[in-house]
Amino acid sequence: MLGYLYPLRTYLIVAGTFEKPNPMTADWVVPLSFSPQLLGVAIGKTRHTCGLIKEKKDFVVAVPTLELLKDVWIAGTTSGAREDKSKKMSVTFVPSKKVKAPSIKECAANIECKVVNEVETGDHIFFVGEIVDVTYGDAFRDGKPDIKNYRFLIHTSSGPNFTYVGNEIFKP
Amino acid sequence: MLGYLYPLRTYLIVAGTFEKPNPMTADWVVPLSFSPQLLGVAIGKTRHTCGLIKEKKDFVVAVPTLELLKDVWIAGTTSGAREDKSKKMSVTFVPSKKVKAPSIKECAANIECKVVNEVETGDHIFFVGEIVDVTYGDAFRDGKPDIKNYRFLIHTSSGPNFTYVGNEIFKP
Repeated sequence: MLGYLYPLRTYLIVAGTFEKPNPMTADWVVPLSFSPQLLGVAIGKTRHTCGLIKEKKDFVVAVPTLELLKDVWIAGTTSGAREDKSKKMSVTFVPSKKVKAPSIKECAANIECKVVNEVETGDHIFFVGEIVDVTYGDAFRDGKPDIKNYRFLIHTSSGPNFTYVGNEIFKP
Repeated sequence: MLGYLYPLRTYLIVAGTFEKPNPMTADWVVPLSFSPQLLGVAIGKTRHTCGLIKEKKDFVVAVPTLELLKDVWIAGTTSGAREDKSKKMSVTFVPSKKVKAPSIKECAANIECKVVNEVETGDHIFFVGEIVDVTYGDAFRDGKPDIKNYRFLIHTSSGPNFTYVGNEIFKP
């Protein structure tokens, strides 16, 4: 019944190190607190990324636009335990400012997080991360997304179906 | 720095009872587990809804489309502690199937949840809910959203700025 929460934004979670990055696709990402600045991400217990974040205690939430769809799909359908999926992708990994996990140059923003809590939620681990730094490009102005000029990626439902955020603004 | 996770879908969280419903607007909603079916919602500790969910141990995640924008805005900007905001809204509250919190007839779906865990995350409480039932209309087919014909609401950033999910489908 989780399908009734969809469509959802899709992000890339980068774990590991600059030397050995491990990106995965995740729709299950959520803000959690203004002060301190916290966010959460639920990752399947059997995922390679889950073990990596448990070990390294940090991760990056990278924000893809529609242009990165092919890379997002590779990151979401390849197992990092079996192969180095960062090599199959066409993005550029760059060092982050405050965490060991790297950032992705082509993404609209990279949100750097240190793990402050891990909660077991059924078949997933919910990692609570404190946001320690962020890098971003022109897709954000004054901390707000520029939906008129950038296509923020949305996963419409499970499987290979994506779209992007509309670019009309409505006021209540 | 939470603004870099936006745009995000926006939902209505309904707490309380059919006799005394208390709806609020929430962007901070996330799927958590396939088995059992779990989702999470982060609610500010000072919110009236937070106390209500702690007391009643259940809630409904109602899925609004763009047509409900005015009601979504009322639910997000009125305090349920001071007035009965359900009376200011033009939606119809109906009994849910398996929880005390009511559903909203005009919403695309109503996801009924029983609280199975409460986690303190900074200035919010993160409620983990087990999905016990769902009602939905034509905006979903085979459990998947019909983005071609329905306008699923998106909060583009903080404040009164909304849009809806695009209706083109892209395949990787």
